[in-house]
This record gives sequence, C-alpha cells and structure tokens, in this order.
Amino acid sequence: MTNLITRAGVAAIALMFVVGTWSVAQQKTPEEEIRQVLQAQVDAWNFGDLESFMAGYWKSPELTFFSNAAETKGWQPTLDRYKQRYQGEGHAMGKLDFPALQITVLSNDAAFVWGQFHLKMPDGKEPHGMFTLVLRKFPEGWKIVHDHSSEE
Amino acid sequence: MTNLITRAGVAAIALMFVVGTWSVAQQKTPEEEIRQVLQAQVDAWNFGDLESFMAGYWKSPELTFFSNAAETKGWQPTLDRYKQRYQGEGHAMGKLDFPALQITVLSNDAAFVWGQFHLKMPDGKEPHGMFTLVLRKFPEGWKIVHDHSSEE
Repeated sequence: MTNLITRAGVAAIALMFVVGTWSVAQQKTPEEEIRQVLQAQVDAWNFGDLESFMAGYWKSPELTFFSNAAETKGWQPTLDRYKQRYQGEGHAMGKLDFPALQITVLSNDAAFVWGQFHLKMPDGKEPHGMFTLVLRKFPEGWKIVHDHSSEE
Repeated sequence: MTNLITRAGVAAIALMFVVGTWSVAQQKTPEEEIRQVLQAQVDAWNFGDLESFMAGYWKSPELTFFSNAAETKGWQPTLDRYKQRYQGEGHAMGKLDFPALQITVLSNDAAFVWGQFHLKMPDGKEPHGMFTLVLRKFPEGWKIVHDHSSEE
C-alpha cells in the first residue's frame, strides 16, 4: 500500500514537472510577444499584404501616426495612407526590415519601441529612418497605439 | 464635560477637513506634473537657459533623442547638440511653444506625450514639427527618457 502511494506521488510530481516545463515554454515575455508582432508586420509587408501589416496597429480612430511632420489619425486613414504611398500607381512596397530594434517594457500593458526602418526598393533606392512606437496590451494582444516615423 | 468633549470633537473634525482639503489641493495628477515639467522647459527655453531646459530630460547616457533620422544618445550629447544648434554663432533660440499637447499616462511611473513644437525666430522663420516623448517618474520627478522630434 505504502509502495503504491509512493508510486502515485512520484508520478504526480513527474507530471507536475512536465506540465510546468511545458507551460514555461509556452509563456512568452512581453519583449518576445512584441517582437513577434513586429516580425509579423515585416513578414506581411514583404508578402505585399498591407491589411495583415496593419493588424499590428490598434484598430481605433484614436490611433496616431506621425510621419515626419504630418499627422494621420485613425486606423483606416493610416491604412489608406500606406495603400496610396506603397500600392498606388508607379509605387512598390519593397523589402522591409527593422534593424536595431530596442524594446522597453513600461508596465504589464505598456511598452515603447524604437529602431530603424529600412526599405529596399526595386529601383535600387533604400529609404530609411527612425521610428518610435508606443504599444498597449489589449485582450487580443499587443498593438501599436502611436507611431512616429521620420525619414531623412 | 460632555459639552467640552463635543467641542473638542467638532474642532478635530474641522481640522481634519482643513488638512484634507489642503493635501488634496497639494496633490497633482500625473498629467499636471508632466505638464509642469514641459512648461518649465518652455519657460527655460524662452529665458535662453538651455541647462534648465535640459532638466526635463533624464540625465543618463541612456537618454535617446531622435531628430528626423538622426539619433543622439545620452544627456550630455543632447545638450551639446542643442547648444550647437541654437546657441552657436549666427544661431538664435527663438520663442518656443508646444501647441496641441496630448498626455497619456501608461502606469504609475510611465507616460507618453505627443504634440507640436513651434518656434518663432528673430528672422521671421517659424520652424515647427511633431514630437513624441516617453517619460518615466523618478524619485526626483518625471523625466523625458526618449524624445522623437521631426521637422518638415
């Protein structure tokens, strides 16, 4: 009987260990979650899919997007701006990457990110600049609520 | 005797009320505290005092300052950049204001601010643009830890 109880105990401990390891493996840090959101944006951009790219932004009229000294307010106008600028006649999306990404977590549900953006265009041009993002964590995940980008 | 106790009670309640009102009046919201930091910057700038202007920034080599696509890292290099740009030969500081300030508190010790900056120069020029600031609350108060400004 004692032997049986011991065996059950060992099995229970082993199971707890396995489940614990699995749940730690599943749990991402806020930095990892945010990096994933931004990587999904890069992948979507390079796939030519602006709607999926825009999934990284807060879908709200309160989203603010600064590009140099111009302000765009709201998710839909931001998508429209991207479409016009990168999918309009004679425009190309190019290949995007975000070198030198720096993620600072401010609280459980707030973070800011700064880094560079770098585009490689079919005509050989390489537009680049700096960006600052503020992200909040919503039930559906981390979203950019404010984007300030500036080009040279 | 009862009368005396009642009087003492009334006096104590009155005193608590006065102290309570006074302490509420002293307690600023984070928005008010941050607005005060930025107003002190504007005042210092318009007084020609760059060192006091820089008191609004985190005095750390980790401070990041983006102006258009250029990055300056650290408090001292940021002050040096301002000095060179606005106090060098043939330069003027002009009159600064921050119209359309928007303060968003993210947590007890983090906030971001966006708005416009507007300068009125002696030669009649009016440089202006957008800025995004990230502030953290330190024991000595709210400080800008990241500044991203872009001019047209």
